[in-house]
Amino acid sequence: MLRTLELAHRRKTVRRFSQEPVDLNKIMQAVEVAGEAPSGANYQGWRFSIILNPNIKRTIREASEEGEKAFYGKVSGDWKEWLNDKKLSHSKPYLENAPVLLVVFARNDVPYSTESVWLAIGYMLLALEELGLATVTYTPSDTRLVENVIEVPEGYRLEAILPIGRSGGDTSKQPRESVDSLVKIYR
Amino acid sequence: MLRTLELAHRRKTVRRFSQEPVDLNKIMQAVEVAGEAPSGANYQGWRFSIILNPNIKRTIREASEEGEKAFYGKVSGDWKEWLNDKKLSHSKPYLENAPVLLVVFARNDVPYSTESVWLAIGYMLLALEELGLATVTYTPSDTRLVENVIEVPEGYRLEAILPIGRSGGDTSKQPRESVDSLVKIYR
Repeated sequence: MLRTLELAHRRKTVRRFSQEPVDLNKIMQAVEVAGEAPSGANYQGWRFSIILNPNIKRTIREASEEGEKAFYGKVSGDWKEWLNDKKLSHSKPYLENAPVLLVVFARNDVPYSTESVWLAIGYMLLALEELGLATVTYTPSDTRLVENVIEVPEGYRLEAILPIGRSGGDTSKQPRESVDSLVKIYR
Repeated sequence: MLRTLELAHRRKTVRRFSQEPVDLNKIMQAVEVAGEAPSGANYQGWRFSIILNPNIKRTIREASEEGEKAFYGKVSGDWKEWLNDKKLSHSKPYLENAPVLLVVFARNDVPYSTESVWLAIGYMLLALEELGLATVTYTPSDTRLVENVIEVPEGYRLEAILPIGRSGGDTSKQPRESVDSLVKIYR
């Protein structure tokens, strides 16, 4: 079996983390993998903050939850149902409890920077899985609230926060559609 | 060494393809890997068209180049310089010459669909590298021109076109910044 298929199959979103500390080298390796991704005009418009400091984590959690309260007050339809099903709420304890927060920034005013950064996050998720580390790709509902309380590299914006650690619970992977249902072939 | 790091290091963008046919099974495997990616509210808002038909490829090339002509007429600054350096122009022969075009669609009106689709493309690029296949992630400058001449799944939009095949030339990988320059650590 392809190694990438094995990793992709195995990898699942985790929102509860063990308190076991994470080897910083592993985070650097995951960033190294992400940094090899292609990007629009090779701008490599990504930057990463590795947050180990408990005070900064708490601040990020508080600013994130403020935005989530507003969001959860207005979300509706299928999305609301999915959030209820998954017992998700405005509360984001993993932003405080995960051993590491990896904050991902995208550069403004370069071509395809959102696309490039998320492509690089795709690389990173497979690397983290190979390293035995779990995560969830969390984007605050109101990124500005978080940008106001952390250091943002000049000319960049917050794109995602990845809490990283060993999985601290047994969550099952969400089901996936069959490949055949995703594809149409034109011969 | 991590397998993901090895694949990410080795993988480079290719715009010239050998005429050797590509095993359709391999494309399906790459799609299977992509389909394992996480997505906003697990919507899996991605669909893929595998184009083997030469007439459809030519039509896609023509519609794409029409948009590129307008774009190349107005691009300026660093981006223009990069395009000149790389000898890129409005001409996109790989859209006609690559053995396979994989057209990637993103679902409208679901949360974080652009982000999710590009994350899945990240998974796919590592899978293609493992399968010995090369590609470039091409987004037409004017996606509507291409959407007008191909079948677009209802409720989806064109996000990218990946010409896929074995590499047909010796291009070197664009340099990458060092990991240390990408990261700031908060202890």
